[in-house]
Amino acid sequence: MSAYDDDNIFAKIMRGEIPCVKVYEDDKVFAFMDIMPRSDGHTLVIPKAKARNLLDISPDDLADLMTAVQKIAKAAMAGMGADGITLQQFSEAAGGQEVFHIHFHVVPRWSDVRMRPPASAMADVEDLKKHAEKINTAL
Amino acid sequence: MSAYDDDNIFAKIMRGEIPCVKVYEDDKVFAFMDIMPRSDGHTLVIPKAKARNLLDISPDDLADLMTAVQKIAKAAMAGMGADGITLQQFSEAAGGQEVFHIHFHVVPRWSDVRMRPPASAMADVEDLKKHAEKINTAL
Repeated sequence: MSAYDDDNIFAKIMRGEIPCVKVYEDDKVFAFMDIMPRSDGHTLVIPKAKARNLLDISPDDLADLMTAVQKIAKAAMAGMGADGITLQQFSEAAGGQEVFHIHFHVVPRWSDVRMRPPASAMADVEDLKKHAEKINTAL
Repeated sequence: MSAYDDDNIFAKIMRGEIPCVKVYEDDKVFAFMDIMPRSDGHTLVIPKAKARNLLDISPDDLADLMTAVQKIAKAAMAGMGADGITLQQFSEAAGGQEVFHIHFHVVPRWSDVRMRPPASAMADVEDLKKHAEKINTAL
């Protein structure tokens, strides 16, 4: 497995070098809206710790990350009025990973509404801001 | 959200009332082969703690569960000779959940091999036993 690359897109987002629509941040984690959301409210949750994916993150950093993933999932349920959550995490290219800083996809779901296909359309930033605020308010 | 149901299939599997092909067990977690695997080595990792899904599991139980999920993922990479891992977890029916005891899907992946569609075919139990042994040996 390759080493962690400090110039991956999510590292740049956390350094403020690339813009994002932020949902939540504390000393250990960062959460922001997926720019090509598979449903309204699709949020990415990442650790500030440098880890490529599930195969190299420390168990302690993973535990902190999952605490945040759970908080975001609950807030997405409440804030977005969702009926369920689909959680996804991809490790290595064969596993579906495209950005090599570990991230969990928190995808709010509604009954009888399919997830949009991956990478199907860029979202309107104003819509993302509205969804981020709904989730953040429910935290 | 409904309360935890002690008669869900995975509770019955852990009580030995329904057979499974076990990969790993300790005092906190239980891992076994998915009977309708989306790839060879597709393993389900569940806590012994009673939790319906991501929305009601305690943060401590979630941390213990994720430690096990990571161990299984690494063992699946090594034991199955996989190129990557796809992790999935579904909360509530709208989120894709079918059995209401929290479970993480650890799906070994290979470059240029698609995941099989959900619930597409029952696996041969002898194949599942071989895959379970490969993963268990790599733990």
